[in-house]
Amino acid sequence: LQHLAPLRASVKEYGDLVRALKENGAPKVDIDRAVVELKARKKRLEERELELAPKEAAFDRLKLEDLLRRRFFYDQSFAIYGGVTGLYDFGPMGCAMKANMIDLWRKHFILEEGMLEVDCSVLTPEPVLKASGHVDRFADWMVKDVKTGECFRADHLIKNHAEKLIQDKKTNAADREALVDVLARLEGFNDKDMQQVIKKFHFKSPITGNELTDPISFNLMFPTVIGPTGDFKAFLRPETAQGIFVNFKRLLEFNQGKLPFAAAQIGSGFRNEISPRQGLIRVREFTMCEIEHFVDPNDKNHPKFAKVRDYELTLFSASNQMDGRPAEACTIGRAVDQHTVANETLGYYMVRVHQFLVKVGVDPRRLRFRQHLANEMAHYACDCWDAEILTSYGWIECVGNADRACFDLQQHYKATNVKLTAEKKLPEPKTVQVTEIVPNKGVIGKAFKANAKQVMSRLAELSPKEVEALEREIDSAGKAILAYEGGEAELGAEMLSVKRYEKKVHVEEITPSVIEPSFGIGRIMYAVLEHSFRQREGDEQRTFLTLPPQIAPIKCSVLPISANVKFEPILAAVREELAKHEISFKQDDSAGSIGRRYARTDEIGIPFGVTVDFESEEQPWTVTLRYALTMEQVRLQVSDLGKTVRGLATGRMSWEDAQAMFPKFEQKGDT
Amino acid sequence: LQHLAPLRASVKEYGDLVRALKENGAPKVDIDRAVVELKARKKRLEERELELAPKEAAFDRLKLEDLLRRRFFYDQSFAIYGGVTGLYDFGPMGCAMKANMIDLWRKHFILEEGMLEVDCSVLTPEPVLKASGHVDRFADWMVKDVKTGECFRADHLIKNHAEKLIQDKKTNAADREALVDVLARLEGFNDKDMQQVIKKFHFKSPITGNELTDPISFNLMFPTVIGPTGDFKAFLRPETAQGIFVNFKRLLEFNQGKLPFAAAQIGSGFRNEISPRQGLIRVREFTMCEIEHFVDPNDKNHPKFAKVRDYELTLFSASNQMDGRPAEACTIGRAVDQHTVANETLGYYMVRVHQFLVKVGVDPRRLRFRQHLANEMAHYACDCWDAEILTSYGWIECVGNADRACFDLQQHYKATNVKLTAEKKLPEPKTVQVTEIVPNKGVIGKAFKANAKQVMSRLAELSPKEVEALEREIDSAGKAILAYEGGEAELGAEMLSVKRYEKKVHVEEITPSVIEPSFGIGRIMYAVLEHSFRQREGDEQRTFLTLPPQIAPIKCSVLPISANVKFEPILAAVREELAKHEISFKQDDSAGSIGRRYARTDEIGIPFGVTVDFESEEQPWTVTLRYALTMEQVRLQVSDLGKTVRGLATGRMSWEDAQAMFPKFEQKGDT
Repeated sequence: LQHLAPLRASVKEYGDLVRALKENGAPKVDIDRAVVELKARKKRLEERELELAPKEAAFDRLKLEDLLRRRFFYDQSFAIYGGVTGLYDFGPMGCAMKANMIDLWRKHFILEEGMLEVDCSVLTPEPVLKASGHVDRFADWMVKDVKTGECFRADHLIKNHAEKLIQDKKTNAADREALVDVLARLEGFNDKDMQQVIKKFHFKSPITGNELTDPISFNLMFPTVIGPTGDFKAFLRPETAQGIFVNFKRLLEFNQGKLPFAAAQIGSGFRNEISPRQGLIRVREFTMCEIEHFVDPNDKNHPKFAKVRDYELTLFSASNQMDGRPAEACTIGRAVDQHTVANETLGYYMVRVHQFLVKVGVDPRRLRFRQHLANEMAHYACDCWDAEILTSYGWIECVGNADRACFDLQQHYKATNVKLTAEKKLPEPKTVQVTEIVPNKGVIGKAFKANAKQVMSRLAELSPKEVEALEREIDSAGKAILAYEGGEAELGAEMLSVKRYEKKVHVEEITPSVIEPSFGIGRIMYAVLEHSFRQREGDEQRTFLTLPPQIAPIKCSVLPISANVKFEPILAAVREELAKHEISFKQDDSAGSIGRRYARTDEIGIPFGVTVDFESEEQPWTVTLRYALTMEQVRLQVSDLGKTVRGLATGRMSWEDAQAMFPKFEQKGDT
Repeated sequence: LQHLAPLRASVKEYGDLVRALKENGAPKVDIDRAVVELKARKKRLEERELELAPKEAAFDRLKLEDLLRRRFFYDQSFAIYGGVTGLYDFGPMGCAMKANMIDLWRKHFILEEGMLEVDCSVLTPEPVLKASGHVDRFADWMVKDVKTGECFRADHLIKNHAEKLIQDKKTNAADREALVDVLARLEGFNDKDMQQVIKKFHFKSPITGNELTDPISFNLMFPTVIGPTGDFKAFLRPETAQGIFVNFKRLLEFNQGKLPFAAAQIGSGFRNEISPRQGLIRVREFTMCEIEHFVDPNDKNHPKFAKVRDYELTLFSASNQMDGRPAEACTIGRAVDQHTVANETLGYYMVRVHQFLVKVGVDPRRLRFRQHLANEMAHYACDCWDAEILTSYGWIECVGNADRACFDLQQHYKATNVKLTAEKKLPEPKTVQVTEIVPNKGVIGKAFKANAKQVMSRLAELSPKEVEALEREIDSAGKAILAYEGGEAELGAEMLSVKRYEKKVHVEEITPSVIEPSFGIGRIMYAVLEHSFRQREGDEQRTFLTLPPQIAPIKCSVLPISANVKFEPILAAVREELAKHEISFKQDDSAGSIGRRYARTDEIGIPFGVTVDFESEEQPWTVTLRYALTMEQVRLQVSDLGKTVRGLATGRMSWEDAQAMFPKFEQKGDT
């Protein structure tokens, strides 16, 4: 590990520099430059760490991908039409696995935490996404072939060209060093940085060799139009969160006006990637599960925090990242006490997220929470911890946990003028000065006729300051001009009076803060598949999936030991017993040895297997029950089967429990 | 009912005429004209039938809609931005109800029938929907204001104008009669018919009074583009079915090559309505559940048909419709025997659909299956029975049950040249004559160089007939021209020989037929809400929903009879007991009488209510359990609560069972 020490020191050097620059109020451009270098050094450190880490026993991604395609977990959409990159169809196995994960998510979060689930439209009018910042800022840089118009994501193009040149023996040492440096910094590059690299190294279109345009911003939302006229612009939602924000008032009312409360949504999000890759990790259409927890901005404690205080997480804090130190195990209680994690609510959700990920089959040793550095944060966030999972693609962000503060609600308020606030009871009533206009309705009515209503409603909207300004003007000039929608009104002293009085108020209006855990279900699914992929010792061709029973697409296989028709009544009884207990099962009466058929069911992660054999016929009918992970078997009566498998499949019973209840069966042929 | 006799006779007159025209091979235009008149007469009959039918006790749609909005079952999307017609957001109540319906659907169909569930992309490339016929035929007629460009759905515009003119006292008798006739025929009108009416009656834009354009076809799919170049056209899928068809090969393989099998998909569909209305009935974004059952076109029997043979459905066959006769109760066995329903598989699904609809709360007296008349059928269907539910909007199509024959698979085959067929084992092997080209690779390679590969692959594709034609031409002319993609090749005798031999084949290739039940979940949900909406006798302000417990958004309410803190430990035990059994519940400790709080929970269809009262404190703790439908109560121990409510909520236990197990409790105050 001493290999890493110099790299750690080199990160710390720049971490300290960034801190110093910030403290001294250095210009933003200097800080940004230092951060790019800091990130480059962090990246080199991380790559070295991954190289030195003990490898998971010979994981073979191609073998997993072959299995997933062959047994139709998922595969490219519209393949018979040539396929579309970034779009995947889930087959029966993937679909059941995904449905099981979502079901568990719903129980773990919505049911156990009493959240308000909503299901909002995918089609979203432009003004909503203008307010949320997506129209202006949800974009990537791309470059185009100047002749053919073909598009490339600028950072990908630079990466590919740079890697090739670095390998090229003709590249001189100085260029090679510069290119290595580019690769390390690329993530922090803006359009000008990229432009410079493309010009300096004469990067061309990899397809035609033609010149490239300057980097152009490309918005990643899918555009469409609603209705027949063509002028009602809309997008497919890039996240489900906005649907919750625009329903805030209804949800608050549903919760009888009380804070805090959490709303949740499960649904599709869309992102028009320039060039998607890495399988399920980066796709154009994906299932998200998002929680928006609305809380008093001045009190982000969580009533259940005490219950999780001692739960330990692997935290990779911003300060550890800047100091070149690795992620550390830490109880969430200590992390919040030390202000490493901003508040109890955020900390509580990080624990619940961790529990969920482990429950669905993520290896906890390959799971960490990484805090965003200040300049990494999305435009709306004020603290953010990504649950990252280590896969063969590196550390992948699978759940974002952000404190979005009051950004979204305020933006939608600005755009619509609909107040998105909650009332908070004051500890004791407060006396406030009220300055209020009392219009003389009769005079205004006569003076403005059809427009009187608008004038009146504009008057009612004036802030105390505006009221006072108006009053002063009328006092001094004898009249004042009031602009309202559709016109201007000249107001005289006879039209209104100003009333001033004291009022006792019992509540104050607050714009809630939002804590948001946001799950990418496809990414988590892929990580779980990688983490559960195994090869039998001594037989690497025989692969299997150790999915948690609750997640497994099919819970139980049913295998007659031979095709003899005398087994049929027993098989029918087995099927009925399983169906009665709502257990999904798959009967395999293909030819082939029992061992071969076990292998076929192990491969798709079926955790339990029922075999009807020659002993089964004796009254009362019995079968063997096999646990795929250990290949151990017990023997039990058919009438005990449903209850037992149901218990095992829902996690209410462990395999050890089953072994304690039923006699062991020594298997033959399962090798 | 004798009021209806003349109307029935008038329908039959045209039913007979249509039949006669068809038998005599009359020109299509004459048949179409007769069908329009037939439909007009059918419509008048149906309207009269509905007028005469006994009314469901005073259903008040406004009251229901108010409830659904107020308690956030669902409401218009983006309301704070002014709202978008045809888009709805589901709140906690609607969302849970929808999730419960889908869960039940998954058990009823996917689990019980062993279907293969898939989850495919919403984004669909244009060529896929070109092949399916949607690009050319999924459209409505609209007219535009010639000056402002504002769009109107042509049939809606005609209907509104005509209705107004009919009411107008200045309209003369002849016009009035003509307009009544237009209304009756409108559904069958094409663009020219509509154009004529608009011209004849000088219909103008209802907003500006400006002239209108001729009817223009407007495609109802939402367009978008995939990727950054802007030239990869795509649409949001109008149905989930196409995702299954393009995956047919993978699914067949998953099913080990065997027919029949069924695939199913639950997901969003999109339809860019010109002017949506009628709440959840006609929307732009909706959840569909679709089944595609692939079956041998020559054997559409169903192995489980015997089990449902005696199940009775209300059938409104095409012939009853043409004869002016009403829908009739009929067992599905008889309907298939008499060829009223085309085959067993279609019939089996109609029964399963009926069972599902009744299970989720559709009143079976307001449910019928209506067969499409020959010219009503979608372009792909060869027999179709809609499950129609009677609501305050009339009979609404909620589940389409179509025999799509092999239309879709053949279309995708034509578009992609990928065979979408299954192999069927022949009863006994068959000897066939094979005529095969054996190319002389060396000669072809030399002659065509870079193009040799294309020439060879084109040769391999030739049908036996084409091979023989080619052979004849070379024999007679010494050469023949072969067109291949990208060029033409002049073939000589030295380049190929033709081999003829006999071959024994054991299988034949067939393109499966598809039977498709297609569910509109939002429509069913709305119908269930209407059918379950009730008012307490003697207190019409007190409304409630009698949703089946499995569908109810929340299963149980928890009500302390007073706010006394001494109840808290008992309430905590109740909550824990319910959570342990995964029962969704809502505690209401608002002030107000117990009767008032019961009313609040009844209103949102919570079927069971637990009350903690002063008797509860005695050891062992007891509570009362109330059934909303009957307002009856029993008293039971807290430790029995979870199991009991779980049984009741899943439908495994009836309220009568609970009454037999626990002592009756005489309630006070629930009025």
